[in-house]
Amino acid sequence: MWSNKLVDDDELVKYFPDLPSGPLDGYRKKASFNWRRMKLVYDNLATIKIKHDIWNFMQNHPLFQHSDTPLSMDEQRHLAVKRMYVYYNEQFAPLHKIAEDPRIFQAESEAMFMFDSSMAVKVSLTFRMFANTIQGSGKPHHYRFIEDIEKARIGGCFALTEVSHGSNAKGMRTTATYCPETKEFILHTPDFEAAKFWVGCMGKCATHAIVYAMLISNGTNHGLHSFIVPIRDPKTLRPFAGVTVGDIGEKIGLNGVDNGFVMFNKYRIPKDLALDKLGGVDDNGVYQTPFRDPNKRFGAALGILSGGRVHITSITTHYLVKAMVIAIRYSAVRKQFGAENGADETPVLEYQQQQIRLLPYLAAAYAFRVFCSWFSVTHVNITIDNFMGKLENAASTGIEMHALSSAVKPLCGWLARDAVQNCREACGGHGYLRAAGIGDIRNDNDANCTYEGENSLLLQQTSNWLLGVWPRRKLLSAADAPLGSLEFLDGADDALAKTCQWWKVEELMDPYNLTQMYKWLTAYTLKMTYDKVQKLKQEGKNNLQAKNESQSYNAVALSCIYGENFIINHFYKTVKEFPDEACRKVLLDLVSLYGAFLLEKHMATLYIGGYFSGEQGLQLREGVLRQSARAAAQAVRLADALAPPDWCLNSVLGMADGQAYKHIQNKVITYPGSMTRPEWWKDVVYWQNYVTSKL
Amino acid sequence: MWSNKLVDDDELVKYFPDLPSGPLDGYRKKASFNWRRMKLVYDNLATIKIKHDIWNFMQNHPLFQHSDTPLSMDEQRHLAVKRMYVYYNEQFAPLHKIAEDPRIFQAESEAMFMFDSSMAVKVSLTFRMFANTIQGSGKPHHYRFIEDIEKARIGGCFALTEVSHGSNAKGMRTTATYCPETKEFILHTPDFEAAKFWVGCMGKCATHAIVYAMLISNGTNHGLHSFIVPIRDPKTLRPFAGVTVGDIGEKIGLNGVDNGFVMFNKYRIPKDLALDKLGGVDDNGVYQTPFRDPNKRFGAALGILSGGRVHITSITTHYLVKAMVIAIRYSAVRKQFGAENGADETPVLEYQQQQIRLLPYLAAAYAFRVFCSWFSVTHVNITIDNFMGKLENAASTGIEMHALSSAVKPLCGWLARDAVQNCREACGGHGYLRAAGIGDIRNDNDANCTYEGENSLLLQQTSNWLLGVWPRRKLLSAADAPLGSLEFLDGADDALAKTCQWWKVEELMDPYNLTQMYKWLTAYTLKMTYDKVQKLKQEGKNNLQAKNESQSYNAVALSCIYGENFIINHFYKTVKEFPDEACRKVLLDLVSLYGAFLLEKHMATLYIGGYFSGEQGLQLREGVLRQSARAAAQAVRLADALAPPDWCLNSVLGMADGQAYKHIQNKVITYPGSMTRPEWWKDVVYWQNYVTSKL
Repeated sequence: MWSNKLVDDDELVKYFPDLPSGPLDGYRKKASFNWRRMKLVYDNLATIKIKHDIWNFMQNHPLFQHSDTPLSMDEQRHLAVKRMYVYYNEQFAPLHKIAEDPRIFQAESEAMFMFDSSMAVKVSLTFRMFANTIQGSGKPHHYRFIEDIEKARIGGCFALTEVSHGSNAKGMRTTATYCPETKEFILHTPDFEAAKFWVGCMGKCATHAIVYAMLISNGTNHGLHSFIVPIRDPKTLRPFAGVTVGDIGEKIGLNGVDNGFVMFNKYRIPKDLALDKLGGVDDNGVYQTPFRDPNKRFGAALGILSGGRVHITSITTHYLVKAMVIAIRYSAVRKQFGAENGADETPVLEYQQQQIRLLPYLAAAYAFRVFCSWFSVTHVNITIDNFMGKLENAASTGIEMHALSSAVKPLCGWLARDAVQNCREACGGHGYLRAAGIGDIRNDNDANCTYEGENSLLLQQTSNWLLGVWPRRKLLSAADAPLGSLEFLDGADDALAKTCQWWKVEELMDPYNLTQMYKWLTAYTLKMTYDKVQKLKQEGKNNLQAKNESQSYNAVALSCIYGENFIINHFYKTVKEFPDEACRKVLLDLVSLYGAFLLEKHMATLYIGGYFSGEQGLQLREGVLRQSARAAAQAVRLADALAPPDWCLNSVLGMADGQAYKHIQNKVITYPGSMTRPEWWKDVVYWQNYVTSKL
Repeated sequence: MWSNKLVDDDELVKYFPDLPSGPLDGYRKKASFNWRRMKLVYDNLATIKIKHDIWNFMQNHPLFQHSDTPLSMDEQRHLAVKRMYVYYNEQFAPLHKIAEDPRIFQAESEAMFMFDSSMAVKVSLTFRMFANTIQGSGKPHHYRFIEDIEKARIGGCFALTEVSHGSNAKGMRTTATYCPETKEFILHTPDFEAAKFWVGCMGKCATHAIVYAMLISNGTNHGLHSFIVPIRDPKTLRPFAGVTVGDIGEKIGLNGVDNGFVMFNKYRIPKDLALDKLGGVDDNGVYQTPFRDPNKRFGAALGILSGGRVHITSITTHYLVKAMVIAIRYSAVRKQFGAENGADETPVLEYQQQQIRLLPYLAAAYAFRVFCSWFSVTHVNITIDNFMGKLENAASTGIEMHALSSAVKPLCGWLARDAVQNCREACGGHGYLRAAGIGDIRNDNDANCTYEGENSLLLQQTSNWLLGVWPRRKLLSAADAPLGSLEFLDGADDALAKTCQWWKVEELMDPYNLTQMYKWLTAYTLKMTYDKVQKLKQEGKNNLQAKNESQSYNAVALSCIYGENFIINHFYKTVKEFPDEACRKVLLDLVSLYGAFLLEKHMATLYIGGYFSGEQGLQLREGVLRQSARAAAQAVRLADALAPPDWCLNSVLGMADGQAYKHIQNKVITYPGSMTRPEWWKDVVYWQNYVTSKL
């Protein structure tokens, strides 16, 4: 996994000069490792360089400067569009570079999302998702649209979700009826509930949409198919006749993205705009598909979307990282209370409750960051292999990728959600300032919990697969799960027969032992869920009922635990081989903290299943506290290693110089109008002039 | 507790006409109780009437109409001010009405907070907190300010928190130095870190502030004291010379409130503006106080603030209620999936995972709503008693009130936080629409987690008291805790010697049995925390260290569990006597669901302490699922009973007619500019004109 030699320190210093001296010096001196080398556990020189180039470009461009005052929704959308084109024009990560080093893909995404998530979403949707879908579902005669989008002559978007159907794609009601006389498809939206909705970039900008509609030919509904649909004239941005398109208005976050809706009124498009690589009609309207089973065609078509979940797992981790950096640095400089009547106050990072609500999440940030680097590269490689026609293990890899991404997208998104909230509260009142930056992170991350599959529903994709695997567990080979996510099933029955043999804090905190406890937990939760489904079926429930009644505490927990098990094992395997010893020691402590923190949350199940007994739980909790306290000493440097440049982080509480109060002062004093009377001051003084008459 | 006769149904119908027929009819028919009568578990005719009057006034006033588009921060502040004066001018709940029926106080607050939390906060701070503080800390010569504020001739605010000191009030650094020559106090802010910060209503509006500063006389610092400080000229709103005052800018929520900062530069105020009822200097600067112990004076002065926590507990419950109403109604009309290949789709409220993430919180909303009615009345009565000089049990009631409010403010705020987030996610993608209303609720509620005492720190107030009580548990009488929050200590040692004797789901779900389990849990957590503190001290830790190292899993959990124990017991006692049988049955089910849901979260501790063993935890979980499924059938009517009028709820997803999609359509189609080209459309088409030259 690791080349013998890490990037030279001299090289690293070029990109990461010393951070400014100040109130954080004390913690920085306490750290036992080289913070620049720590970055190499998830970055390499190529990823460091591309992020540096992107941020450098942005920092020196007027469009990428932060506004002193909040922008209106319209201003946010305008700015996101301009930033998108200016950024895209630079071509920081063209395909050939990604093919050379697939890690570039995630690094570029990190640079974008850490700066402006609306712009980043718009870049992804306008260009990449549109092109990738055509690549995956189209034929050569569609590729001219890829060229148009690459040259930004048109603007794309992706229209799947309808007002009344999101997760249940089979229930969608937009139709595309084939008319053999004119060789056209007639797109139609029966009512507002069938309007395509939430379509990113459709609100104001897109000229072309990938539209999913029920393909009807000769009176037969062939199910959901995709079409390239011209929406607006690329020269005037006016919608075409038969298309009603608009903006869905304000959202909780990501307001630079113009999410939109579209309704079609018997809108005709040429037949050759059907993306029919995986199935479609011939000129006479006879349905043709390379697949025999229509369900497989549907599955293959949806499979093209799996990259979204992989990407979101990274995006949510970037948000997590930003929030952690802010809260850790601020907790290290915010002092409150201290020895009784003592003059020196204590940094709040030293308080136990502050440690436990931040440091396990910092450990998770490292675990996720390391995992996401691997996950993103793995997905890029799968995509390239598919494109090149390498089919060895392709099916099983694809299925495992689907299951794993359906688990980690929710679990990483939820952990980030909880971590961001803890960061917000850990910053006390000042965390409620918009200038602290955490509110926007929370609002932007919130979208991750429901888009690209509502989390609870996604988890069913994973649990359904695992439930199918369980009875075959003794027949599995490595080829059944090439990514290794089923390793917990090796000797699962033996593992389930055992109880936890570790009683001392040190034993319980050992990273290897923690992976063994997770092995038991994962296998137990799978078995428990499987048994419950079987029991419900024996009681006469049909498959749907049995699955539904074994979700909470069972299938939902199972999918999360399966994902956590993979991440902790991946984290452990990666860091135990990391060449730098000082970094490795700290990283192993983070493995221990992350694992123990998660197990503590599942502790009731450890007892119910008989794996824990007596006071083992008490010792595990003691371990979480000890590991949190250990991590506190390293926390500022761990945050430094993760942090984007100050300019990009843009938080008065989280700057690298630790001068939170000075940055608050600067922000407040220079806030336009901060100290002037409001224009409406007379409505305060002369309020009696406008109150309701009592006559 | 209950009069024999509830309000007549005929009377109720006057205030609550039938709700519009539509997609919610099915669930409404399923409900087994009269939804109007259900309101009487927390409301009476007086509270129903005042809310009706307030909402009716607002609905018929142009200033209280909702805007189609988001307002700028300045517009929000302007609007909140105008609404505040117009509302205040109506005098819906003057003191004499509150004295007649103290429940009026909370009902008025509910009406305000459910409509516009910024306006509500401004009313509270500008008028009530200012007047109450003068009432509590001032002498008769200060009362002219109360008259001025009552007539709204001046605008008040409350300035305690400083930039670098919030929770640690003793560390504050604003000084008020007495000058005997001129009989003045000289207020001074040494630097920006000592600026008063976060002061609600100070940003743009307040003319007078209650300022807390270190009183220095003859070279001696007498600690924190309060002063009435003129900030701005009431006729011009210009600040006085020596006062630097401004707005702290945008926040995550509550942007209609102009939070501000102030710095004093040797600013002189007359001596008689010192609020010196509890201590101050004479004309010569000699310190005088009715208290011998300065810590007691400090405690008494801070005690005046305890009403804030009681009020916030209600406020957070109002937010919780709004979010629940939206999510429950929407979950009942949102259909997705269904029997395989079946035409009819199933309301998402029928899915187990949807039930478990909503219905325990609906039960909590009822528990809190009932508790808050009692809590608010109790606090008003204590205030009145104090004012009237009734001192029987005043000290012990005050201390218990302090401990209880320091526990329930955090626990209700956190539960609301989690519930609101669950509601947001349970509404799927559409929950991310601002028009759904949940985002604003989350942002406004978020402030509750850190203001009036950061939650984790508040909990220490409670745990410190409980740790002091534990060794005296056998000597306690009812007079030691007149509110009854220490009842769990009756026979605590016997209870701790027992293990849980219930093994069947029905037994475990029995409300009485659940209160007994909570009794064990509360006593156990107290004993465990006490023992840990003792152990740490024996190991040589000082008091501060020992307390700090026994927070997580111990003192923090203890304070929450103590509060939960009180609420569940209060809920149980209240509803089991409720005169309407059909309502009572459903309410008892909610007691069971709320209690079991909470116990499930503490289940690891039940096992660690040996109270649970074997599969009891599995049965408890099964019980939570069953009770959630039972509650699903009643949920829409339970939401109806809690709901404010549609107009006030203002959510496209949560209207009483259940026509969520129609309201989305209406909102989207009428959104200004929804379907027009943006003014900046040329920046989309002609983007090449502004990208960076490659020359």
